[in-house]
Amino acid sequence: MSRELDSIMCPKAIAIIGASSRSGTIGNEIMNKLTEYGFSGSLYPINPKAGEIYGVKVYKTIMDVAEKIDLAVIAVGRDQVLPVIDECAKKEIKGIVVISAGFKETGHEGAELEKEVLKKIRQYSMRMVGPNCLGVINTADGVKMDASFADALPLAGKTAFTSQSGALGAAILNTSKDLNLGVSQFVSIGNAADITAETLLEYWKDEPNTDQILLYLESIANPAEFSRLSKETTKKKPVIAIKAGRSAAGASAASSHTGSLAGADLAAEALLKQSGVIRVNSVQEMFEVAQSFANCPTPKGKRVAIMTNAGGPGIMATDAVCEKGLEIAQLSEKTKEYMKSYLAEAASVKNPVDMIASAPLEHYEKTLKALIEDENVDAIMVIYLPLMNLDPMDVSKTVMKIKGQNPQKPIIAVMMAKNDFFSEINKIETNVPFYQYPETAANAMAKLYARCEWQNRPRGEEPLFGVNIQKVKEVISEALMQGRSQLTTLESIDVLESYGIRTCKYAFALNVNEAVSEANKIGYPVVMKITSTKISHKTEIGGVIVGINSEEQLRNEYKALLERLKEKGMQNDLDGVIIQEMVKGDREMVCGIATDPQYGHLMMFGLGGIFVETLKDVAFRVNPVTDIDVKEMVRSVKAYKLLQGARGEIPANIEQVEETILRLSQLVKDFSFIKELDINPLKISDKTGEGIAVDGRIEVDFDKAKQMLEVFSVSSGTL
Amino acid sequence: MSRELDSIMCPKAIAIIGASSRSGTIGNEIMNKLTEYGFSGSLYPINPKAGEIYGVKVYKTIMDVAEKIDLAVIAVGRDQVLPVIDECAKKEIKGIVVISAGFKETGHEGAELEKEVLKKIRQYSMRMVGPNCLGVINTADGVKMDASFADALPLAGKTAFTSQSGALGAAILNTSKDLNLGVSQFVSIGNAADITAETLLEYWKDEPNTDQILLYLESIANPAEFSRLSKETTKKKPVIAIKAGRSAAGASAASSHTGSLAGADLAAEALLKQSGVIRVNSVQEMFEVAQSFANCPTPKGKRVAIMTNAGGPGIMATDAVCEKGLEIAQLSEKTKEYMKSYLAEAASVKNPVDMIASAPLEHYEKTLKALIEDENVDAIMVIYLPLMNLDPMDVSKTVMKIKGQNPQKPIIAVMMAKNDFFSEINKIETNVPFYQYPETAANAMAKLYARCEWQNRPRGEEPLFGVNIQKVKEVISEALMQGRSQLTTLESIDVLESYGIRTCKYAFALNVNEAVSEANKIGYPVVMKITSTKISHKTEIGGVIVGINSEEQLRNEYKALLERLKEKGMQNDLDGVIIQEMVKGDREMVCGIATDPQYGHLMMFGLGGIFVETLKDVAFRVNPVTDIDVKEMVRSVKAYKLLQGARGEIPANIEQVEETILRLSQLVKDFSFIKELDINPLKISDKTGEGIAVDGRIEVDFDKAKQMLEVFSVSSGTL
Repeated sequence: MSRELDSIMCPKAIAIIGASSRSGTIGNEIMNKLTEYGFSGSLYPINPKAGEIYGVKVYKTIMDVAEKIDLAVIAVGRDQVLPVIDECAKKEIKGIVVISAGFKETGHEGAELEKEVLKKIRQYSMRMVGPNCLGVINTADGVKMDASFADALPLAGKTAFTSQSGALGAAILNTSKDLNLGVSQFVSIGNAADITAETLLEYWKDEPNTDQILLYLESIANPAEFSRLSKETTKKKPVIAIKAGRSAAGASAASSHTGSLAGADLAAEALLKQSGVIRVNSVQEMFEVAQSFANCPTPKGKRVAIMTNAGGPGIMATDAVCEKGLEIAQLSEKTKEYMKSYLAEAASVKNPVDMIASAPLEHYEKTLKALIEDENVDAIMVIYLPLMNLDPMDVSKTVMKIKGQNPQKPIIAVMMAKNDFFSEINKIETNVPFYQYPETAANAMAKLYARCEWQNRPRGEEPLFGVNIQKVKEVISEALMQGRSQLTTLESIDVLESYGIRTCKYAFALNVNEAVSEANKIGYPVVMKITSTKISHKTEIGGVIVGINSEEQLRNEYKALLERLKEKGMQNDLDGVIIQEMVKGDREMVCGIATDPQYGHLMMFGLGGIFVETLKDVAFRVNPVTDIDVKEMVRSVKAYKLLQGARGEIPANIEQVEETILRLSQLVKDFSFIKELDINPLKISDKTGEGIAVDGRIEVDFDKAKQMLEVFSVSSGTL
Repeated sequence: MSRELDSIMCPKAIAIIGASSRSGTIGNEIMNKLTEYGFSGSLYPINPKAGEIYGVKVYKTIMDVAEKIDLAVIAVGRDQVLPVIDECAKKEIKGIVVISAGFKETGHEGAELEKEVLKKIRQYSMRMVGPNCLGVINTADGVKMDASFADALPLAGKTAFTSQSGALGAAILNTSKDLNLGVSQFVSIGNAADITAETLLEYWKDEPNTDQILLYLESIANPAEFSRLSKETTKKKPVIAIKAGRSAAGASAASSHTGSLAGADLAAEALLKQSGVIRVNSVQEMFEVAQSFANCPTPKGKRVAIMTNAGGPGIMATDAVCEKGLEIAQLSEKTKEYMKSYLAEAASVKNPVDMIASAPLEHYEKTLKALIEDENVDAIMVIYLPLMNLDPMDVSKTVMKIKGQNPQKPIIAVMMAKNDFFSEINKIETNVPFYQYPETAANAMAKLYARCEWQNRPRGEEPLFGVNIQKVKEVISEALMQGRSQLTTLESIDVLESYGIRTCKYAFALNVNEAVSEANKIGYPVVMKITSTKISHKTEIGGVIVGINSEEQLRNEYKALLERLKEKGMQNDLDGVIIQEMVKGDREMVCGIATDPQYGHLMMFGLGGIFVETLKDVAFRVNPVTDIDVKEMVRSVKAYKLLQGARGEIPANIEQVEETILRLSQLVKDFSFIKELDINPLKISDKTGEGIAVDGRIEVDFDKAKQMLEVFSVSSGTL
């Protein structure tokens, strides 16, 4: 389906419907851009007034054009859009760009109109960019199309870019010119009624002129699709995204702006991470990072060498490199010996290599070469601070020359020079990214390294465990029949157990002999809890007895319990007791599931017990998760050190903990109507290191559950 | 003493010793700068070759100059520095700037020479900048001194700046010109043998041409002095500092560079915070923030209004504002109604105010005025994204005009325009800071607000509690006499108790009757622990019994204990038992003291128990701390929510917890030889909310302790 977009992105003939000779109108500006940038195909401006615009003949209607048209750029009043699309259909136009605004972004009425438009687009098998957008650009030779009303003409290059905000798209095109970072294609998706960021990810995945993809998103239309396509695309080229609306207030602003759902940033963050998308938080950062991807190979590791002509910047670079999670390379003895042979006596050959202020160009050249050859170095930051002796442009040219001869490692240049230098360097073709400050360079390096990690990361599996689906159906059906969407603790434990999750063993006993028999099966120590529909304050009357170590003690405690009840005249209120395995361990984790209205099920794992809400040491991933997702998730929380046994406890059985999360994932894939699920605590046994669900809480969507379970029973118990 | 620096910063006559006519030398470059910038006083270049440099007569020796000289700038070989200083003394010169390198930064020999130089400086009652520095600048009318070899001539302004790295200083002077942020004075302190950042803080505090102070530091020579002076200076003007060497690797690079001590960043971070210094982490951030301070009043609160002509940037601004801890202002109904009266129908009058792309200049003007008048707004971010209609310079001028008429609130402009615009705006005088992206603006706003908080912050007190100093001396003396620097738990508890810290009550008992009597005094429940010099594995033989609830139970447990010992043939090994108060509560905090070799005692507070090392939810402050420092410290940890009773427990007695920390502070002020002190856990009682020291560990510096305690005893028990 990918090639369907060719009619929009690589048209041979474009109709500009609503083209205008009046300057200052969008219909005029688009004609201006198309002609000024030199579109390689035919242009057919359409306007009832006919005449000529920028030397091109204007047609009264599209039907007057004899030739085949691939793309219609529509810039008419919103009420004209539907009839215009009908006409385009008659003319068998397959590509549509609706510039016109006044749709979903303006409220209910506009949204309804947008639906009508989309219906027609689907009906005519067209593809559409917009409505409410800035237009499209393709800088490729043989196309040369700027069908937008952005500020400046684009600069050709290898970076594709799409923006959900038209205005921001325009700003970004400006910046890309300032920074000499050329664009291959640009699509302002506007309201993204048909063509979304997902469509473009797929289209650009194999687009030969595109080496990297930049996204500005305020919402993700179809998270599952986005994830699937990102994973495919990011294996081939970097995808760098701004996802705005991170804060609750920002999401609410985004919501009024384009109808995004609020508060889903946790989910968005997880989704981008799982999909290998490099997230940035500002336009500035997006460009800084894009410049490095445009000029650097992916590093093989995270060991950074820094070379500088001044100590201060070397220290600042070291701080920044470490803060970004990279490492300061330990240079080989050979490299150090070699550098000693020519550097000044006061120079430091330890990383950061301080060649001192007097270093001539030759030292830059020799040192950079030596660092490239050093096997302990994965990436190099070259810092030059203009002092009396060298011109920064000369240093830059030296660095570029050596990079040209040795393209294998990322080299990033930091020129702590005046703006003049950057204006100058951004006018020439470079093979090295140039930044003014080491912090920027370190951040870009970290993103390059993130790509190395992503490329080396196994794809992961979604394992399929043998589970007891039928039992879960029964338990939930029973609760539904009782009119409950919330399962009891015991029901929740039953559900978990049916999916092979290690739960705290328990049994119900009607009398002391049954209690003893169950306790013997479970194994001491045990906890005994009364069950009663009448007694509400179980702890107050001593109804929960922990640490029962033997049959004898159990019998004594049972007797004492009965006596206490008798004293209060409650001897007849006892339904029985629960005998429960007593899990010893003070490491309490939490795992579970939350449901985001847009992103669906989120898996959650982290530090549990009394700390969940206070310390928020929890990680999220969007379901479905792979074993690799879960591995990363478990390792991403600080409490992972506790699991490893940082304080001398036996290490937790990490694999079993991971399996617990994967089994939960399978559970909610099978039972999508589960709304919330919490295992808190998942206690790490001090005896076996297992994670044991000591408590569980499950809530389902009542109506969905009812509907689906009926479906289940019709299909006689198989999913 | 402040005026002593006038001979260096406001000299009437300068001798340039080592002035040279050979271009490319430092002695030549400094003469070049002094003459080119137009020093208002007299210049006396000194060089045995005599002649003339830049039209100024050269003297063979300083003694040949008849006139009085205030400042000698010395740029000779390092071996010449000592004799030159002697000569300067003969000439009664009081101000010295030693440009020459080859001192402490080169190793032991250089460090010794530097000591010699400093000795002479002190002996002659001179003041000295350097050695190993870039020079000094004062742009004031009537001085006009650029005695440096920085790249470009300085731009006059209101910002004073000192740098421990000469090269970085040069880079920063360049940037300040690019950004049109003028400098009042610049001092490259180099090795800072005499004049340090502290000296300059004091000097610039009352310097009338200086409105803000920027520092680049790699080490803080005298933390206590720095703190004292910063607190005074920051009450008057903002102090913005880079303290490099944040990472361990960075600190180690700083160490080889200028001899800073490693790994003290926790302490540095605390010190800067306590002193009201605004810390930034890069040169870029330093300037971004400085531009706001140069152009904005301090806001009265943190409620930010955002106005924009495009939705996307509005969302990004909202995200950034929230992430920086500021708030999105709730605009008054009046403001919203007013804006509705003229903004386009599709505009949003809710903050962020989206005036949409068609907004004319008039809308910028009206909206900005309305937001200034809105009492719910403390600061305003004006965003303009160039689309087809307005020129960014026109928008900028409108914003500046309104700011000129309404100077009371901070207004920050974000122009998402091309670099050309910034080159242009940086050439004119502004009264508003201009940034390219909203994230930068939000960060600068957050720093402005931090200053508001600092100015409103009470100075704080160091309360003096009634304590039992004598008892502590005795306890520690006893340990020293036994050759121990580490106190036992009981000794530690005794020390804490002597300083009025609520400790877990305990008592020693020789037999069951004593045990009962002590337990009755302490109150049940209690814990009983055997004490024995012979039994090492106390828990294995059941030597720790918790949860003893009554005299009867205590007698039974004691009996059972004796029986267990008898069984093992240990009945004679028992020395007695400790009866200890049993504190119930699962909130375990930690507080204590660490010693940094450079910063001295650090107070520590945070989440204790098994989480100290894993979760690192702890805060540090440099001692001495005030009650306000401690209040902020306690509130800065995430676990503060637990103290408040986030989970339904009784709220902790926060005041008492704070007092605990203040009493510890007093303890280590009195006994400075205490090296380490840990209360872990400081258990929050579920009964009273008090923080109770259940365990304590104190270690002293043996030699210092011995020496000081002998002093104490000589002075017969008073400090």
